[in-house]
Amino acid sequence: MAPELFQPSGECPLPISQYPHVVMAHGGGGKLMHELIEKVFLHAFTNPALDARHDAAVLNLGGKRLAFTTDSYVVNPLFFPGGDIGALAVHGTVNDLAMCGARPLWLSAGFILEEGLGLDVLRRIVQSMQRAARACGVEIVTGDTKVVDRGKADGLFINTAGIGLIQHGFELGPRRIAPGDAVIINGDIGRHGMAIMAVREGLRFETAIESDSAPLAEPVLKLLGAGIELHCLRDLTRGGLASALNELALAAAVEITIDERAVPVSEPVKAACEVLGLDPLSVACEGWFVDLVPGHEAARAVALLKSDALGAGAAVIGHVTAGQRARVVVRSAIGVDRVLDMPSGEQLPRIC
Amino acid sequence: MAPELFQPSGECPLPISQYPHVVMAHGGGGKLMHELIEKVFLHAFTNPALDARHDAAVLNLGGKRLAFTTDSYVVNPLFFPGGDIGALAVHGTVNDLAMCGARPLWLSAGFILEEGLGLDVLRRIVQSMQRAARACGVEIVTGDTKVVDRGKADGLFINTAGIGLIQHGFELGPRRIAPGDAVIINGDIGRHGMAIMAVREGLRFETAIESDSAPLAEPVLKLLGAGIELHCLRDLTRGGLASALNELALAAAVEITIDERAVPVSEPVKAACEVLGLDPLSVACEGWFVDLVPGHEAARAVALLKSDALGAGAAVIGHVTAGQRARVVVRSAIGVDRVLDMPSGEQLPRIC
Repeated sequence: MAPELFQPSGECPLPISQYPHVVMAHGGGGKLMHELIEKVFLHAFTNPALDARHDAAVLNLGGKRLAFTTDSYVVNPLFFPGGDIGALAVHGTVNDLAMCGARPLWLSAGFILEEGLGLDVLRRIVQSMQRAARACGVEIVTGDTKVVDRGKADGLFINTAGIGLIQHGFELGPRRIAPGDAVIINGDIGRHGMAIMAVREGLRFETAIESDSAPLAEPVLKLLGAGIELHCLRDLTRGGLASALNELALAAAVEITIDERAVPVSEPVKAACEVLGLDPLSVACEGWFVDLVPGHEAARAVALLKSDALGAGAAVIGHVTAGQRARVVVRSAIGVDRVLDMPSGEQLPRIC
Repeated sequence: MAPELFQPSGECPLPISQYPHVVMAHGGGGKLMHELIEKVFLHAFTNPALDARHDAAVLNLGGKRLAFTTDSYVVNPLFFPGGDIGALAVHGTVNDLAMCGARPLWLSAGFILEEGLGLDVLRRIVQSMQRAARACGVEIVTGDTKVVDRGKADGLFINTAGIGLIQHGFELGPRRIAPGDAVIINGDIGRHGMAIMAVREGLRFETAIESDSAPLAEPVLKLLGAGIELHCLRDLTRGGLASALNELALAAAVEITIDERAVPVSEPVKAACEVLGLDPLSVACEGWFVDLVPGHEAARAVALLKSDALGAGAAVIGHVTAGQRARVVVRSAIGVDRVLDMPSGEQLPRIC
């Protein structure tokens, strides 16, 4: 491994792990991705909105508070049980806005198409995006199309960016997380990741697993509307619950303890994870989020979530303590504690 | 060619040209791209902001007027004389905001990385983006990274979306174009496209051609600040001057006549176009725009542009008439008129 590969222009003295080239795990939502973001992107682009490391940037425009976010979607396959890349590209960006407590308003859509893609495929995806956008109450107001040569993309990639309006008075974010907070989830984890993997690996289960891809703005706005004192929201995407909680523990410098028995996981997801040797806690979701609220607000928050179609499985799954170190601990069914590490990011590539 | 390929789900009755699959010309800025946008994207996503077909959507947020836009960048090669994909991804989106007369404020950056890309390459590109952003006075406030398998992308693709603030009172857009308007350009056309093509084709010229990639917000804000009555602005990207003027003529239902002798083209670009059999009028630029202003404002607008570093070559190149048909006419050096068609979009793939 040649050290000069890391410092070609003498401009950046930060080594980045032991990899001189991009590997799949750099996109997997785990340790390597966080290192890449930290050492390459945040290092270059540093500014307060970006450095807050929220799901979306919170921006002040003449007294109005905006949320602004972007995600590219490279999921493989393009269609999967419970969704497709188009609906996912709407839900994912709407959810990043929702995690700031914003009401999503407008999306952009950038398409990178591979020469040879069937226009019928493109049409189905575009129509799915439009249905998802209408269901979320957002408009796709601007777009772009690029075409690359055959073999230089994989069907199509979609980028969506989104703008939302923040109308609540809370400051949400990891900085607000405090010992005593309850950790609440709105449903059973791992369905999105396992729906994709089942298709890719050609697995068949007694009960088909459908992606949980769904828009989260309504349940969040319901919590805010009821005046629940939310401290922090985070949707579970790449790296699943393990990645989301590790990010939060690290950013807030707290210990988060999860009761494994309390984390909802469906039987088909459990079975599929066993077959593939995966931990459901590290599997991607696209329609679930954790909210951290003061302990005394937990029961009311769960009840409110349960009244929403996307919160029927809501549950308190853990709590925050000052702890010795910033980390996530999982207490097993037999009462044994283990540290839940940030996933490496290699196991579930191109899940979104 | 099977008609059923066009109507797989029975949802969309619109045939799209004779192509059942995406071809390179669908991304070339010409006829096929406009047809794709019209029949697939606008058909599905229709809403007033999108249907205005401006370079950016103009949105009203509680009395503030925002511009919002997106572009993906797939330029090949990643580095070229006068620029790279990173600076281009900043300039291009800043320019789309500027074409609404907005002051660009914030960008998002979405990266799709191919497994195996050198991290040194990524660093150089990210640093170039940051330099370009700083020079434009914009901040990159939110981002995303995805990785796809080796062979499933081409090094990297970048998407930027941007938000700008509109502080002028004009309504800019094709609808404002009127007979009697002068067509003004701020410099010599075709350098970006020919810089890329020269690298790709391995051409060497006596004078190297450098891309004209540059941010256009300052000259536009200068025109607005001086109270010039701007009717419409359009930057010249894919399809160059020919594509931009045809779009405007069609949207405004006017005839635009261009005096070929008045259009600034450098000698190296002329020479390169001759070698490759290209019309400079159809070659992409990334740092030039046309502005349409009432004839009596033309001299003042040109003088103001000439006072800006990016407007030294500013010139009136044509004018708008009611005409018989919505079209663009070029008057040659010997006084012969010819219709300047929308380019087909096949000649200069992956130019931005």
